[in-house]
Amino acid sequence: MQVDVAFTPDEAASARVGIVVDVLRATSTIAQALASGYRRVLCCAEIDEARRLRAETPDSLVGGEREAIRVEGFDVGASPREFLEASAETLILSTTNGTRAILAAAARCDTVLLGSLLNLGVVAAAARETGRDVAIICAGFKGAFALDDAYCAGRIVQQLGGDRSDAAIAADLVARSFPGPLEALNARTYGPPGLEADIVFCAREDVLDTVPRLAGMRGTAAEISL
Amino acid sequence: MQVDVAFTPDEAASARVGIVVDVLRATSTIAQALASGYRRVLCCAEIDEARRLRAETPDSLVGGEREAIRVEGFDVGASPREFLEASAETLILSTTNGTRAILAAAARCDTVLLGSLLNLGVVAAAARETGRDVAIICAGFKGAFALDDAYCAGRIVQQLGGDRSDAAIAADLVARSFPGPLEALNARTYGPPGLEADIVFCAREDVLDTVPRLAGMRGTAAEISL
Repeated sequence: MQVDVAFTPDEAASARVGIVVDVLRATSTIAQALASGYRRVLCCAEIDEARRLRAETPDSLVGGEREAIRVEGFDVGASPREFLEASAETLILSTTNGTRAILAAAARCDTVLLGSLLNLGVVAAAARETGRDVAIICAGFKGAFALDDAYCAGRIVQQLGGDRSDAAIAADLVARSFPGPLEALNARTYGPPGLEADIVFCAREDVLDTVPRLAGMRGTAAEISL
Repeated sequence: MQVDVAFTPDEAASARVGIVVDVLRATSTIAQALASGYRRVLCCAEIDEARRLRAETPDSLVGGEREAIRVEGFDVGASPREFLEASAETLILSTTNGTRAILAAAARCDTVLLGSLLNLGVVAAAARETGRDVAIICAGFKGAFALDDAYCAGRIVQQLGGDRSDAAIAADLVARSFPGPLEALNARTYGPPGLEADIVFCAREDVLDTVPRLAGMRGTAAEISL
């Protein structure tokens, strides 16, 4: 099994199985929402598209933020702490970096799983069980490297075994450089302030046993379910 | 001073000053050739273009390899050990990853310097003296992350000071993970065999005091001089 990592969605990395990582916060929020009982998450990049999907989807909620501020007219924000209970069947989530990474993975991989620290062990086990080559695709931040995603990628690499690419070796080395996940997430230099409680929430390892998967595209939205 | 790193040329990273790194071997070879007395290096991606430039440039040599094998009809290969003495005024060098990174840097930066382990200290000092934001742009390998370039980027970051991006922090962590440059270069997983002597040559730090700079484009070739 070959194990590769793309630190940004544009980086070359292909494999049969892709694991998309957007620790702060898309993949953490989706894993939490599905664990709480949402049946599916429709993940889309544009706010207008999210509003349209909300209008045409019965029993749905729409969540999303820009610069850590809830989008006007949306039902909820994008914090995983808002999804500890299911309030609808379908969650429509507007994210930019996370959606872009999911679409990049879908273009290159047969199977797309969503990874975070919350579901670290089960997502690594699910990928390992396929017996196929794995690429971990980090969402990053606006096309650039993000330390929180690289840390999580390194933690997944450590659990996968297999033959590592240069990027997989580097992700492992980055992960080993921090005493724990909270230190790694707090070392990041990008993003808006005000996420402290979400960072503590997302820094917990192996608290969920859900493995979100890309079920398919619905227009330009990625439908994620278990 | 902001310090950023792009682990591949496609990654978002912009600054007034760019340092292109292709340790194995373009930037090492160019630094060596200019130190040995070549007046300029014309760096181009395509073999046909290199042949054309050779034909129209008086007192020139053309070098280049594909998969570590010298291109048919070329005067020399692309090993830095072939340029310990100047045999012409102009060296035309056909490289793929290195040229792509130089062009990416030229599109984003006012000043483009070429860095390697050979000229680590002087290139970092030259960048620092500009007082401007610096982006280190790694050539990588076929669009993917390369451990040798990431190590060199981390060593430059360590000498630059300034405010580090997430990628700059990660490059520093990767560099700190190896006892020395030879161990880092030998940890890489990509590329053709047969480069052992070049790897030992390119793993030496601070043996040259040349700072290659992009002087301008000559058609689609990048002209590099001191």
